[in-house]
Amino acid sequence: MSLIVLGTVALDNIKTPSGVRKNLLGGSAAHFSMAARLFTDVHLVAVVGEDFPKRYPTFLKNKGINLTSLQIASGGKTFRWHGEYKKEDFNTAVTLATELGVLSSLEAPAIADHQKHISNVFLANIDPDIQIGLLGLMKKPRLVGVDSMNLWIRHKKKSLLKLIKGVDLFVANDSEARMLTGEHNLIKSAKHLRSLGPKLIVIKKGEHGVLFYSDKTRFSFPAYPIETVVDPTGAGDTFAGGLMGYLCKAGKMDAKTLKTAVIYATTIASFNVEGFGMEKTDKLTLPVVRKRMKELLSFISY
Amino acid sequence: MSLIVLGTVALDNIKTPSGVRKNLLGGSAAHFSMAARLFTDVHLVAVVGEDFPKRYPTFLKNKGINLTSLQIASGGKTFRWHGEYKKEDFNTAVTLATELGVLSSLEAPAIADHQKHISNVFLANIDPDIQIGLLGLMKKPRLVGVDSMNLWIRHKKKSLLKLIKGVDLFVANDSEARMLTGEHNLIKSAKHLRSLGPKLIVIKKGEHGVLFYSDKTRFSFPAYPIETVVDPTGAGDTFAGGLMGYLCKAGKMDAKTLKTAVIYATTIASFNVEGFGMEKTDKLTLPVVRKRMKELLSFISY
Repeated sequence: MSLIVLGTVALDNIKTPSGVRKNLLGGSAAHFSMAARLFTDVHLVAVVGEDFPKRYPTFLKNKGINLTSLQIASGGKTFRWHGEYKKEDFNTAVTLATELGVLSSLEAPAIADHQKHISNVFLANIDPDIQIGLLGLMKKPRLVGVDSMNLWIRHKKKSLLKLIKGVDLFVANDSEARMLTGEHNLIKSAKHLRSLGPKLIVIKKGEHGVLFYSDKTRFSFPAYPIETVVDPTGAGDTFAGGLMGYLCKAGKMDAKTLKTAVIYATTIASFNVEGFGMEKTDKLTLPVVRKRMKELLSFISY
Repeated sequence: MSLIVLGTVALDNIKTPSGVRKNLLGGSAAHFSMAARLFTDVHLVAVVGEDFPKRYPTFLKNKGINLTSLQIASGGKTFRWHGEYKKEDFNTAVTLATELGVLSSLEAPAIADHQKHISNVFLANIDPDIQIGLLGLMKKPRLVGVDSMNLWIRHKKKSLLKLIKGVDLFVANDSEARMLTGEHNLIKSAKHLRSLGPKLIVIKKGEHGVLFYSDKTRFSFPAYPIETVVDPTGAGDTFAGGLMGYLCKAGKMDAKTLKTAVIYATTIASFNVEGFGMEKTDKLTLPVVRKRMKELLSFISY
C-alpha cells in the first residue's frame, strides 16, 4: 500500500565533531522518505524554493520517491537549517540558525487528486496547521501518523493537540514527550500522550532506544550500538519512515508486527547517524538492513 | 557458593519528591547484600560506629546475612550520607553532606579466617585502597567484582586502575564509565574499560537499562518501567547484588547465564527504587522477583 508523507525538504548546514557540511539535502519528509521507500512507494509532499539544487529531486526520484507534490515556489527560498551537535550530547541538536523561506507560508501544499486516496498518511515535523490542512485533503486515511517538535509544542500547542486527537500514531522524542505532557517519567508521559488521542505512542530516546505504548502492547528496545556517530540529523525522521513503511507493507497491527516495525526502524535509523545527511541511507537496501537487524536482535534478545 | 562483600554500611538522610527520611539503613554493602541474599549466603564486611542503631544488625541478620565481619569501631561514628534527588533527574544524586566517621580509616576491616576462603568476592563502592586491602586477604578468589564511584575516579584513580586490572567484573554507571575512560560513547567506553583489565563490563544507565560488554558477549536491556520512583538510593548496589548473587548460584558464565543474571539484577533493582531505603527489598522473595521478571521479559522481548 502507498504512503504519503508531508513535511519539510530542506538544505542543511551541519557541524558535528566529525566535520562540517553545507547545503546537504535534509528535512523531515526527505529523511522519512529515504527510509520508507525500502518498504513501499512513497509520495512526498513539500515545498522548496527556486534555489533548490536540481540534483536533489533527481536523487530522490532515483530512489523511487514520487515527487508529484514536491512544489517549487516561484521566487521562494528553500528552508535552511544550520545546526550543531556537541560530542557530549549527540541527542540534542543546537540550532545555530533557521531560514524559513517558503515555509513561512501557512498553507498545506496542493496534492494531486489521485494522491488524496492514499490510505497511509504521515505528517512529519512541520507547522501543525499545515499538517491539519493536508490531513483534511485525504479521502479515507487508514493509518495516520504524526511527528512534531519542541517549537510547535511551545508555540502551536492548541493546533497540535487538535491534530493528534484523532490520529493512530504519535512519534515523539523523550524531551518532546516530556514538554507536551509535563510528565518527566516516560511511562507516565506515554500514558498521558495516549489520553490525548493517538492509539500508538512511540517515544524515541536516541542512543537509549525506544519506548512503545498502546492499550494492549508495551515494549522497549535499546538502540543499535553505534561507536562513531557522525551526524544524527534526521535520525528520528528516518526512524519514523522505517516504522510507517514497514506497517504499510505489513498491513496489520498486531504486537509482533509492531515490534518488527520498531526493530526495522531502529536499524535503519542506525545507518542514518553513521554519515552526514543521506550518505548512508543513500545506498541502503533491505538485505543490508536485515543483516544489521540480526546483529541488533542478538544484542537485545534474552 | 558463598559470597563475601566489602563496602559501606551507612545511615542515610534522603530527600526525594516523595518525601524525606532520616537515619535509613544504607550503604553499598548493605544494599548489595539485600539483593544477593536471595540467591546465596552473603558475608558482609564493613565498619560502623557505636551510634549504629541495634535494630539494623538485627534486621540484616534476620535476612540471613552473615555479620561476622561487621565491625563496630569503638568511639567511632557511622558513615552518614545526606542526599537529594530532583524530579527532573532521578539518575543523579545530589550529595548535600557526607560525614565519613569510621570510613576515614584507610584499612580494610579484618575478616575471619574461614571467610578468607570464600571464592566469590564483591568489592562494593568504598575507597579503592580498602578494596585492594580486602582482596589481598582472600586465598583463592574465583569471581571478583568491583564497583566504584566518581569520588574515587577523581581522587584515587591510580589505586582504582591497579585494583581493576586483575578482576573479573567491573560495574559502573554511565557517568562513571565516561569519567574513567574519557569516552562519551558508551560502547567505546565499555571497550576501553575492558582494555583496563576486567573481563566483564557492566554499564548501568539507570532508567535506560544496562549495557553488558565482554570479549564474547555484548548485550543491552532496558530497565523495568517504573512509573513512580520513590528513592533510587542503592539501586546500583542492589543491581550488583542481584548480578553477583545469581552468578554465584549459577556457577557458570555462559552468555545465557550472564543475560539471566542481568535480567534478575534489573528486576531486583526495580523494587529498590519503589521505596525509601530497604522498604521494598525488605519483603522481597524470589517468587515475587520472578513474577516481575516475566513482565520485564514480555516488555523487552522481540
